[in-house]
Amino acid sequence: MKPSPFAPERLAQLPALPGVRLASAEAGIRYKNRKDVLLVMLPEGTQAAGVLTRSKTASAPVEWCRKQLEHGRAGALVVNSGNANAFTGMRGQEIVETTVALAADAAGCEREEVFLASTGVIGEPIPPGRFEAVMGKLAEGAVEDGFTDAARTIMTTDTFPKLASRTADLAGVLVTLNGITKGSGMIAPDMATMLAFIFTDAAVTTPALQALISRHVETTFNSVTVDSDTSTSDTLLVFATGTAAKGGPWIESADDPALAGFSRALHALMQDLALQIVKDGEGISKLITVHVVGAEDDAAAKRIALSIANSPLVKTAVAGADPNWGRVVMAVGKAGEAADRDKLSIWFGDMLLATEGMRSPDYSEEAASAYMKNREIAIRADVGTGGHGRATVWGCDLTHGYIDINGSYRS
Amino acid sequence: MKPSPFAPERLAQLPALPGVRLASAEAGIRYKNRKDVLLVMLPEGTQAAGVLTRSKTASAPVEWCRKQLEHGRAGALVVNSGNANAFTGMRGQEIVETTVALAADAAGCEREEVFLASTGVIGEPIPPGRFEAVMGKLAEGAVEDGFTDAARTIMTTDTFPKLASRTADLAGVLVTLNGITKGSGMIAPDMATMLAFIFTDAAVTTPALQALISRHVETTFNSVTVDSDTSTSDTLLVFATGTAAKGGPWIESADDPALAGFSRALHALMQDLALQIVKDGEGISKLITVHVVGAEDDAAAKRIALSIANSPLVKTAVAGADPNWGRVVMAVGKAGEAADRDKLSIWFGDMLLATEGMRSPDYSEEAASAYMKNREIAIRADVGTGGHGRATVWGCDLTHGYIDINGSYRS
Repeated sequence: MKPSPFAPERLAQLPALPGVRLASAEAGIRYKNRKDVLLVMLPEGTQAAGVLTRSKTASAPVEWCRKQLEHGRAGALVVNSGNANAFTGMRGQEIVETTVALAADAAGCEREEVFLASTGVIGEPIPPGRFEAVMGKLAEGAVEDGFTDAARTIMTTDTFPKLASRTADLAGVLVTLNGITKGSGMIAPDMATMLAFIFTDAAVTTPALQALISRHVETTFNSVTVDSDTSTSDTLLVFATGTAAKGGPWIESADDPALAGFSRALHALMQDLALQIVKDGEGISKLITVHVVGAEDDAAAKRIALSIANSPLVKTAVAGADPNWGRVVMAVGKAGEAADRDKLSIWFGDMLLATEGMRSPDYSEEAASAYMKNREIAIRADVGTGGHGRATVWGCDLTHGYIDINGSYRS
Repeated sequence: MKPSPFAPERLAQLPALPGVRLASAEAGIRYKNRKDVLLVMLPEGTQAAGVLTRSKTASAPVEWCRKQLEHGRAGALVVNSGNANAFTGMRGQEIVETTVALAADAAGCEREEVFLASTGVIGEPIPPGRFEAVMGKLAEGAVEDGFTDAARTIMTTDTFPKLASRTADLAGVLVTLNGITKGSGMIAPDMATMLAFIFTDAAVTTPALQALISRHVETTFNSVTVDSDTSTSDTLLVFATGTAAKGGPWIESADDPALAGFSRALHALMQDLALQIVKDGEGISKLITVHVVGAEDDAAAKRIALSIANSPLVKTAVAGADPNWGRVVMAVGKAGEAADRDKLSIWFGDMLLATEGMRSPDYSEEAASAYMKNREIAIRADVGTGGHGRATVWGCDLTHGYIDINGSYRS
């Protein structure tokens, strides 16, 4: 697989988080000669929060996590790639239970403190015995600087591992937030998209963490789209160990003013990870940022922005470096939200291409074509309702690469 | 442009309809060396009905037709290809008014009895003088057997002209229904899709015609999708001349039992034309029919069916002949309608691939793969709610051809 043109030249180096130990192994679930199972062991007292797919055909691991998020205590995380354990019926359920028991034994925690995620092909049972064969070795070999290896282990059609880190001041204590994520296709913004795991040493309890990620997910993971297809397995989990507070008090409410810096850092980390997913979108050659302003409210703006970012005709025009802004007009029109055709304005980059219901008098085909040769394309639309609704979403173009990746047998 | 593999070996030959005279000409609006303007002159007393795009950025001709459908009297129809006259501001409006005046003079009818449609590129003004140059010649040369030529004239990225005809018994009189349509990309089912024109000698008034097409459009034009993109110009118009009744009474109500045969023929004609659009979907290699049963109601079934038919991952799997039914599970899950994962069943053709939340015990990879080599693929899902909602939609696969057609500069 050719790497995305947006693959970073250097991977982010994530610092160790005290007590967070990671290990990866080759279990041969689907791939050969690469690691496909990740175990993360978390120190006692770790608090978890999460956002899961709203798909009506959610996977067995997603349903397990949904139940455990009610209490939020976490001791271990197990993730496998190559098989989503989705639509696998009773056998899928059994694999969840077996894996949970193995991980609880290995990490020395309660079964209810084990979180699970699986990603890969849908509808095929995971062969038996795969987790059994590696769990003991994983627990023995777990280390605090295993983040890079972990990010590689959870990849499927990804062409690069996705890592990011931030620090923040929390009530006078410097805390660290580490995140890894994966995802390249079947990416659409109806929830936390695909798999993302964030670890922090901050002392923030589950209810406060949950409120923060539920707020931030809308403008980060839920604002990216590769192909408008929503996974059965989307999982965002955040684990807070509290070790940075060295026994000091935990912050219990998202409204605590002391959380402001932590919240900003968390948002920045989530946006960084979400953008890495788009930048590795299947077949991507160009990154598309869509800004919509002048909509009735933010929700309307986001629906219009997604209508533009998901339009196959807009995406193929960008791939072909064609400044075909007429297709943006079409996508605004089909979104179903209020828009005033005769007050609609469209910019590509800083160039005003269309305004007041027609082509701009200053329109230059030459300048617009030159702009489309860039690797990053910004499309901005003021939909002219006079409202203050605005939204930004990120997507990618639709190329032959996408069809090659997804049209090949059981990719 | 390579013709669609579904292009008919022989075009339907449409019989003449007394008083309906058609003419086509080269106006050079965008294309060179081909006809691009169609004039249809209708006999006095013709009644019209129509369904138009719900796009918020509808074209100037669509807005004109919406106004004239309030009274429904028709004397002429003018259609051009190559330019949609959409998002063209005051200049677009002026072109509508000029064209209406020209056509009214040529056909000897009121301006309000002229209907217009334009299809092609969005946002570029039509050069002045194009309609003036050909209208007189068109009126002089109009003939009753001009349907094939008319169907060719309105093509854009279509690879074959689309015609169909039906007859019906209406109150003891044999009536004929002739239809032409165009469309290949920017096809999504939120209304009458792209351009379709139906002509009949039946004596059925506007209110009755309107009720019939509004009912039938849901299961015909609004049940096909090529790429989920909804045009600014979608227009379905039906013209009834009444000549078959030879001065007898007109049928005024859609509830008149005498209309039963006519209604069936109209539905069959609309379905035939709608399917011809999908069969000429940009880049099509396989036709996909999606049946959904077991949904809460028909509207829910249709949304699930469209979620499957519009999924880029399902479409690329079909293109690659991969029986990847897991992606159908995904598309059911993301549709947002009620579905019971553990009672969901999926068939490809007659083969049950998945049932009761997992792969069918009888699943054969070999048989499923062999099936996917067919040119027409039927996907059926019982979403297991126990409800009686059902729907059928038609779509096509997503191939390199679609990207070639739409990624080339200003296609």
